[in-house]
Amino acid sequence: MRMYDVITAKKRGAELTDEEIAFVVRGFTKGEIPDYQMSALLMAICLKGLSTRETSTLTMEMAKSGDMLDLSAIHGKKADKHSTGGVGDKTTLIVAPIVASLGVPVAKMSGRGLGHTGGTIDKLESIPGFQTTIPAEVFIKNVNEMKLAVAGQSANLAPADKKMYALRDVTATVDNISLIASSIMSKKLASGADVIVLDVKTGSGAFMKTFDDSAALAKAMVDIGNHCGRKTYAVITDMNQVLGRYVGNWLEVREAMEVLSGNGDEELTLVSVTLASYMLLGCGVAKNLAEASKMARKALTDGSAFDKFREFVVRQGGDVSVIDNPESMPKTKITMPVYAPAGGFVGEINAEEVGMASLLLGGGREKKEDAVDPLVGIRVDKKVGDSVKAGEQLGVLYANDATKAETAKERFLGAFRITDAPVPPVAPIYGYVDESGVHKV
Amino acid sequence: MRMYDVITAKKRGAELTDEEIAFVVRGFTKGEIPDYQMSALLMAICLKGLSTRETSTLTMEMAKSGDMLDLSAIHGKKADKHSTGGVGDKTTLIVAPIVASLGVPVAKMSGRGLGHTGGTIDKLESIPGFQTTIPAEVFIKNVNEMKLAVAGQSANLAPADKKMYALRDVTATVDNISLIASSIMSKKLASGADVIVLDVKTGSGAFMKTFDDSAALAKAMVDIGNHCGRKTYAVITDMNQVLGRYVGNWLEVREAMEVLSGNGDEELTLVSVTLASYMLLGCGVAKNLAEASKMARKALTDGSAFDKFREFVVRQGGDVSVIDNPESMPKTKITMPVYAPAGGFVGEINAEEVGMASLLLGGGREKKEDAVDPLVGIRVDKKVGDSVKAGEQLGVLYANDATKAETAKERFLGAFRITDAPVPPVAPIYGYVDESGVHKV
Repeated sequence: MRMYDVITAKKRGAELTDEEIAFVVRGFTKGEIPDYQMSALLMAICLKGLSTRETSTLTMEMAKSGDMLDLSAIHGKKADKHSTGGVGDKTTLIVAPIVASLGVPVAKMSGRGLGHTGGTIDKLESIPGFQTTIPAEVFIKNVNEMKLAVAGQSANLAPADKKMYALRDVTATVDNISLIASSIMSKKLASGADVIVLDVKTGSGAFMKTFDDSAALAKAMVDIGNHCGRKTYAVITDMNQVLGRYVGNWLEVREAMEVLSGNGDEELTLVSVTLASYMLLGCGVAKNLAEASKMARKALTDGSAFDKFREFVVRQGGDVSVIDNPESMPKTKITMPVYAPAGGFVGEINAEEVGMASLLLGGGREKKEDAVDPLVGIRVDKKVGDSVKAGEQLGVLYANDATKAETAKERFLGAFRITDAPVPPVAPIYGYVDESGVHKV
Repeated sequence: MRMYDVITAKKRGAELTDEEIAFVVRGFTKGEIPDYQMSALLMAICLKGLSTRETSTLTMEMAKSGDMLDLSAIHGKKADKHSTGGVGDKTTLIVAPIVASLGVPVAKMSGRGLGHTGGTIDKLESIPGFQTTIPAEVFIKNVNEMKLAVAGQSANLAPADKKMYALRDVTATVDNISLIASSIMSKKLASGADVIVLDVKTGSGAFMKTFDDSAALAKAMVDIGNHCGRKTYAVITDMNQVLGRYVGNWLEVREAMEVLSGNGDEELTLVSVTLASYMLLGCGVAKNLAEASKMARKALTDGSAFDKFREFVVRQGGDVSVIDNPESMPKTKITMPVYAPAGGFVGEINAEEVGMASLLLGGGREKKEDAVDPLVGIRVDKKVGDSVKAGEQLGVLYANDATKAETAKERFLGAFRITDAPVPPVAPIYGYVDESGVHKV
């Protein structure tokens, strides 16, 4: 088999065979296929597309290019969730304890954040003492004993994807749904869960700006997952404003605990319950979504989800005193309220800009090596559709550096668009995708 | 300017600006733009196309990437011809003396052959003593004094094209009309002629297999030439059989001399006269094509074209005794007639296969370093449409190695398709292209 012929076939719009796709992924990973041939193929894929079968095969081959986590020592069906990345997205901290408290094992490999969206690992590490580097056998033992463990990604997951993504990033071949879907799903398949629930963000703060694009990506990922024998669902959720009210590592942990105690932000609670419900449904713990939703809600109100979270923090070495008494955490040096320059209605809150403001405060990373400040962040007091008076508080910045705070304040204010005419509130959930297709809600 | 943005623009089907094209060609030639970005752009070009303006700009930038030959020291309008490559194509050896004998200067840079088509330089070097490495000032002096010089390509012509072609060759981005046209024309523009006549071959032995493809390529090249201020014509000629009757370096020189003496193969004569006529027309030596054709024919019958060829051979150090008495050339060890296995009509002679048979005899190069045997080759005794009896002679192989002769014989025989039903003869010229467009004849 020759790479030249594979490129020619795709250039002419032909479907590649499974053997051809395997040849490409293996050859490229090993360095036998040079970058210049791969980038020609990637451009042909962008312009001619991949079928569902081709996309699934590509994803599976990328998954198999590195370690495939063996979770067979964990009893029962394992569930995993993945978000395409949003600002203030702390749902993993809520969803995982909910489903674990209902008996569904969650063995989660998670990454650190880069850019304006924080990673779950960064958030958990804001809890003093919390350990995310755990030996494999302890990780497995924890899941078997208490249904929940989260570890930093140490395994060599889908190196083909890593190499391919680096090339796509410099050859303008990123924005193809099949390639994006296979990139995300290759790591999920390698992570070994039986049930995968995807949170596909849509809006100004997300990679996908429109419902149609998000739905197409969600459908491609659900098709891949199901095609590869994993029960897969996607929920299409809003990212036209921050999810919940807080952005920043410790601030988000605290907000997650509010939801876990049954009295958190309404939209954040709804999104978390919905994601948890699909995990419960996929694992067969609930008969239908309504039942699953009821179970998830109950876990929040009866304290079992919070207790699971507390147990999880203790097990991974975290200081339980800050869980029991969040006010005991150290405070930032500066607490800076931000006021509305004019009155009217909140027409738009650009979530990406709020995320950038938090990053400017030191809450995120611009480069992989950057350290994050666990305490800094932002509270957002208004949501899209709210009325606001001139001089009314829009939010609060928590900062440790006055200069950074001033810069972040400008950025934060710039994220708001205040209009004269009333604006309807933004729905937190736009739709979902299962085996039967895309469903708008 | 960033290569990423240029790739994105072409991927979306946008027209690139002249500045963008210049940026790409210069950056790639200097090695500042890596192969993997260039191959992504080339694939996008293959699938989204280039406009006439983009193609002309690309060609001119590639021409300017290396030496631009300065022929200003040569008096009058300089004419050049180029063939896209055919088997038995010895027209340069005929056309150049015709137009030179009529006062049109021909300062020709020519390449060596690779694959099944021989190069003009290889053919000329079959004449004992003939020199193709000439100092620039002697080259110019020869053209000024006798209107004709042919030299091996020593200048650094269009290095961007060389580098780009090497990449296209391994990334399945060869078969795009704009890229093929710009590759050929960049070298022609750099070679400095005022008038360019292109012989675009079409058929089984050519790169372009159909009239429509050949016409599209011809039109693209004519548009580039005229757009860049060179009077450019193309003639679309047949390559569904060998042009003339001989394939092989010395054999082709001898056949060219037959045509130059006014008694050569009819189709070869017609093609040569037509190409010469467009050169005469373009240089303003004739008022119209009919007059040009008459002048060219007269140069063949009155001996002036042959005399010019003889003068040219003498000037470049060739042994004039083999020109005056071709029979004095050494003979090959083996002369092997090939007979028809069955009777009928010649339905097809695959020119590429005849070329391969000649290559197997040692008459061509598989690799750049290979030496060629000037004496070996093939005489083809039948043309498409001829009737043939079983056992009748189809041709003769001239060989210096018995094993090679046997292999070549099988290949040569395989090139023939003998049919029961009569077959019409093949026309040598299918059409021409000038500023006004494509004209089928």
